[in-house]
Amino acid sequence: MAAKDIIRLVHEADPRGIARAISLIEDQADCTAELLQGLDQERIGASFVLGITGPPGVGKSTLTAGLVQLLRVQKQRVGIIAVDPSSPVSGGALLGDRIRMMNHALDREVVVRSMATRGKLGGICAAAGAAVRVLAASGCRTVIIETVGVGQSEMDIIRLADVSVMVLAPGFGDDIQAMKAGVLEVADLIAVNKADRPGVEKLRVDLGFIFKNDAEKQRRLLQTIATENKGLDALLQSIQEMEQQYRRDGTLYARRRRSSSLEALDWALELLRPRLIHLIERLDEDIEPRLAAEQIIRQLELDGK
Amino acid sequence: MAAKDIIRLVHEADPRGIARAISLIEDQADCTAELLQGLDQERIGASFVLGITGPPGVGKSTLTAGLVQLLRVQKQRVGIIAVDPSSPVSGGALLGDRIRMMNHALDREVVVRSMATRGKLGGICAAAGAAVRVLAASGCRTVIIETVGVGQSEMDIIRLADVSVMVLAPGFGDDIQAMKAGVLEVADLIAVNKADRPGVEKLRVDLGFIFKNDAEKQRRLLQTIATENKGLDALLQSIQEMEQQYRRDGTLYARRRRSSSLEALDWALELLRPRLIHLIERLDEDIEPRLAAEQIIRQLELDGK
Repeated sequence: MAAKDIIRLVHEADPRGIARAISLIEDQADCTAELLQGLDQERIGASFVLGITGPPGVGKSTLTAGLVQLLRVQKQRVGIIAVDPSSPVSGGALLGDRIRMMNHALDREVVVRSMATRGKLGGICAAAGAAVRVLAASGCRTVIIETVGVGQSEMDIIRLADVSVMVLAPGFGDDIQAMKAGVLEVADLIAVNKADRPGVEKLRVDLGFIFKNDAEKQRRLLQTIATENKGLDALLQSIQEMEQQYRRDGTLYARRRRSSSLEALDWALELLRPRLIHLIERLDEDIEPRLAAEQIIRQLELDGK
Repeated sequence: MAAKDIIRLVHEADPRGIARAISLIEDQADCTAELLQGLDQERIGASFVLGITGPPGVGKSTLTAGLVQLLRVQKQRVGIIAVDPSSPVSGGALLGDRIRMMNHALDREVVVRSMATRGKLGGICAAAGAAVRVLAASGCRTVIIETVGVGQSEMDIIRLADVSVMVLAPGFGDDIQAMKAGVLEVADLIAVNKADRPGVEKLRVDLGFIFKNDAEKQRRLLQTIATENKGLDALLQSIQEMEQQYRRDGTLYARRRRSSSLEALDWALELLRPRLIHLIERLDEDIEPRLAAEQIIRQLELDGK
């Protein structure tokens, strides 16, 4: 199928067309640039990208499913990109399956796509960023990027979002300590989920301590009990108010620009990777790795430019 | 200080010289290649690189401290590289601090170095791999790379090791499910720590199920209670038997080659990154990211070679 036919199917919200488009992007097909350039830029500009992250076990999938339900009440078509960087070898992606199973399996206006890193070092930002635009171009007003964990790759993915939510839960104190304030600062909102569980007070005290000098951030702490749909209305309201504010004050535009740059860099590294590997394989096997790197870059004739 | 002076200090096991060398590598100083090339290759070849990973909270630091104690009984000088990919923004690295605090703070024959990813996408494999060689060249017979988590970056770091141990503990069932067999397969040995806690039977059943067709792997499951020093002798014995076997059958040589290639690729990407970013910044701001990537690679005059 030609790129322009796939683009047409995406714009018609055809599920197989959408799936096909994202697969071609993931496989870095030759038509990738043509396909992405042909997408409806107006729809992409009007769409809203929400990032959801947090450690495993805090209830992200339930919370996401709850938010999707509320967005459906608002008559929005919703896209979900579930990125699972914790499955490098198997390439499995449980997250999307879980969301799919939950509520929206038969709802054609909810599009779920799972992505795993498949043992590759990079490229997930590039593929996830491009997939977001495919879903937006298919008419999704809100596209949710959900990712498990609080590591480097998760944070890079979250930086693709217009607004991001970090989900935490009682009993994950060690994780909070390990995350420190830094990772938490990347998120615009923090949802303390499972707020009926023991330990919620301790978690609030810990977070209050981390944000002790940041009254703005303290206001952005919300409590939810996703399994009972509690607090999700207020969370979605905060998210959408933040979207409006960010559209007005230029934050959203600045973030889109930054995320485009991140994605372009990620694509460039992906395009270079096979050439670099090829050059490395041709080197003497006992060469010092750093020197090997300098040599292959010289071989690429990059030096002196 | 000239590279040759720093190399001399490393070979004399001077703590400040070692710290200086690793800092220069992390900062990608101009002398990086010269410094690494000057290291005692015989010591590096004779050294043994042990990887330890697992989800947060399973007791990796306690287990590592216990193994270090046993290695000290064997009169080995020991190096530890503690990599903490979960602190991207703050750049903090709690792990090394914890290990340092435990037992060996005053023992000059135990060298601990912490590394964090500092918000950069890549480069941690390169820096960690090079730091391992610095510690080996300073006379460490065993160098331990410890890393938190089971994500992509952790697995890449673990691939730098000659032998690797995945530490698990009861109550981390969800994580195991998320990891699937894939991530577990990367590890040579699996230590079920906190083996006195409730849930250890369920964990063993889960692992047994994952490895149901892999009798070899089942034999590699060990139980430990690191806080009571239980099972650590047997674990170290298995590790060292595996080292000997891998030296005999060529596995160790093959792994070192693979890890050199990984490190060379990582260095090359690090060296290219600032140039790519510079080129991206000069592009039209509304350009499609994938197209931007193709354009800057053309600008690098890489095409057609």
